[in-house]
Amino acid sequence: MRMYDIIQKKKYGKVLSKEEIQFMIEGYTKGEIPDYQMSAMMMAICFQGMKEEETLHLTLTMRDSGEVLDLSQITGIKVDKHSTGGVGDKTSLVLAPMIAALGIPVAKMSGRGLGHTGGTIDKLECFSGFSTTLTEKQFYENVNQIHLAIMEQTQNLAPADKKLYALRDVTATVDEPSLIAASIMSKKLAAGADAIVLDVKTGNGAFMKQEEDAFTLAYEMVQIGKNAGKKTVAVITDMDQPLGNAVGNSLEVKEAILSLNGCGPKDVMEVVYALGIEMILAAEKAESPEEAKHMLKQTLQNKTALEKFAEFIERQGGEKRLVYQPELLPIAHIQLQVINTEEGYVSKILAEEIGLACLALGGGRTTKDSVIDLSVGILLNKKRGDMVKVGDTLATIYANHMELAKEAYGKIVCAYQVQKEPISAVPMIKGIVH
Amino acid sequence: MRMYDIIQKKKYGKVLSKEEIQFMIEGYTKGEIPDYQMSAMMMAICFQGMKEEETLHLTLTMRDSGEVLDLSQITGIKVDKHSTGGVGDKTSLVLAPMIAALGIPVAKMSGRGLGHTGGTIDKLECFSGFSTTLTEKQFYENVNQIHLAIMEQTQNLAPADKKLYALRDVTATVDEPSLIAASIMSKKLAAGADAIVLDVKTGNGAFMKQEEDAFTLAYEMVQIGKNAGKKTVAVITDMDQPLGNAVGNSLEVKEAILSLNGCGPKDVMEVVYALGIEMILAAEKAESPEEAKHMLKQTLQNKTALEKFAEFIERQGGEKRLVYQPELLPIAHIQLQVINTEEGYVSKILAEEIGLACLALGGGRTTKDSVIDLSVGILLNKKRGDMVKVGDTLATIYANHMELAKEAYGKIVCAYQVQKEPISAVPMIKGIVH
Repeated sequence: MRMYDIIQKKKYGKVLSKEEIQFMIEGYTKGEIPDYQMSAMMMAICFQGMKEEETLHLTLTMRDSGEVLDLSQITGIKVDKHSTGGVGDKTSLVLAPMIAALGIPVAKMSGRGLGHTGGTIDKLECFSGFSTTLTEKQFYENVNQIHLAIMEQTQNLAPADKKLYALRDVTATVDEPSLIAASIMSKKLAAGADAIVLDVKTGNGAFMKQEEDAFTLAYEMVQIGKNAGKKTVAVITDMDQPLGNAVGNSLEVKEAILSLNGCGPKDVMEVVYALGIEMILAAEKAESPEEAKHMLKQTLQNKTALEKFAEFIERQGGEKRLVYQPELLPIAHIQLQVINTEEGYVSKILAEEIGLACLALGGGRTTKDSVIDLSVGILLNKKRGDMVKVGDTLATIYANHMELAKEAYGKIVCAYQVQKEPISAVPMIKGIVH
Repeated sequence: MRMYDIIQKKKYGKVLSKEEIQFMIEGYTKGEIPDYQMSAMMMAICFQGMKEEETLHLTLTMRDSGEVLDLSQITGIKVDKHSTGGVGDKTSLVLAPMIAALGIPVAKMSGRGLGHTGGTIDKLECFSGFSTTLTEKQFYENVNQIHLAIMEQTQNLAPADKKLYALRDVTATVDEPSLIAASIMSKKLAAGADAIVLDVKTGNGAFMKQEEDAFTLAYEMVQIGKNAGKKTVAVITDMDQPLGNAVGNSLEVKEAILSLNGCGPKDVMEVVYALGIEMILAAEKAESPEEAKHMLKQTLQNKTALEKFAEFIERQGGEKRLVYQPELLPIAHIQLQVINTEEGYVSKILAEEIGLACLALGGGRTTKDSVIDLSVGILLNKKRGDMVKVGDTLATIYANHMELAKEAYGKIVCAYQVQKEPISAVPMIKGIVH
């Protein structure tokens, strides 16, 4: 077998066999196939796409390139939840303790933020002392004892995907749905859960700007999951404006705690319920969506979710009391209000711009090695559909340097779009792919 | 400027600017842009193509990446002739002395053969002592004095093309017409002639198997030439069967000498005249094709072309008497006849198979460093359209090892296709692109 022939085959739109895909991925991971052949192949795939079985073989080969976790030491059906990434997405922080409070094991691998999107681990590090570098043994123990543990993704999870993603990232070959699906699913499958619930974001702040593309990606991931023998479901959710009001690590943690106290923003809770219902159904703990939703609501009303969150923070070394006194979480010392200059209705809040404003404040990473400021961010006082008058505060910037605050101000002004006519409500949940 | 953005732009089908193309090619030649980005770009070009102005900028940037010859020391209009390569193509050996005999300067850069196609320099080396490693001064002097010199292409001619071609060769990105056109024309333009006559081969033994693709390539090259300010014309010629009867270095030289004696095979002479007419017109030495053809014929009748060839061989160190006693040229000691087993008419002689048979005999190069046997080859006793009976000799193999002769025998048998019905004549000249 020669890589040249495999590239040529794909270039001419033919279907690659399982053996060809294994030869290519295994050879590339070992360094036997050079970057320049693989990047030509990735570009050919961008134009010719991949059939369902090719995507499956690619995913499984990447999954098997490293460690595949065996979660059998954890009792019960393990359900993983994954988001394709967005701005202001604190869903995991709210949902994980709610699900764990129902006795469903949540054994979660998480990542850090990059670019305009945030990451769950960064947010959790707002609790001083909190650590996600658990041994596998600790991880299993925590899940068995309190039903919730979050661990940083190990270096040896799908290393083929890691190498391939780094190459795609510098050769403009990232945005092909089958490649994205295989990348995400190879890691999810290696993480060992029995069922996977995917939150596929769509809109300006998401990777998939077009709803149609988000559905394509969702469909591809669900097919892979099912073909790999896992219950898999994808919920397509709105990311045309940031989720909730808070963007920035500590601000988002506060909003998550607010949500666990039953006072979460409407859009956040809509997404939390939609995903939570699928998780409970996948875990076979409810018979119907209505029953599942009722169970979720109860965890907020009886505060078991909030208590679970505190228990979890403490178990992983964080300061538990901050869950009950969120005003003690890190907060930037400058607060600058973004003032509205045009009467009307907010028609859009470009999520990507808001994400970039937060990045400019120091609240995100431009490269993997950036040090981030957990205390900065943006609070959106007005959201899509709100009526605004001249002089109203659109948003509040939390910053530690006035020049950075001013840079963010410009971006936020650009992100807000105001029109004369009222706008109709945009549904948060665009669809579900089973 | 970032290579990433340029790749993305091409991927989305946009037109690259002159500056972007220069940035990319200059950066790549210097090693500042890595192979893996360039191969992704090449694959994107295979799908999106290039506009006329992009191809021109690419060609000129590659031309300027190394030495550009200044032929102003040679008096008169310098006309270069280039063939895209075929099997049995000895046109240059016949045409160059005919043109030089008319007083038109022929300052030619040539290459060596690779794979199933031959090269002019290998063929000339059948004359013991012959050398193509001239200094530029000698080269100019020879052309000024005897109107003909052939020099091996210098290493520093379009080095960007050399590096890029090597990458395309291993990433399945060779067959895009604009890239092929830019590759050929960058070298032709660097070689400094005033006018360029291209022989674009089409058919089984050619790079462009489909006539349509050959016309596309011809059109692209002519556009580049004209846009670069050179008179350029392309003649599209048949390469569905080998050209002439001889395939293999010394056999082809003998056939060229036969042609210079006025006894060349019909198909060879058709191509020689078609190209020769365009060369004479480009050199402004005739008013009409008819006049040009008459001039060409005269060089054969009055033997001035044959004498010019002998003079040229001697000037570059070769044994002149071999031109008049071609039976002394190297010849393999085994002669094996390929016998026909089916009565009918020869409908096809797959040129690529015949080229590969010659390669198997040791008459070609599988890699750039292969040593070739100049004395081996194949003489085609029957050609397309010929009536054949059982027991007729289809071809004669000239070999130095019986096992290699037998290997070639199998390939030649496969190359010949015989049908019951007579076949109509196939025109040698498919068209001309001005």
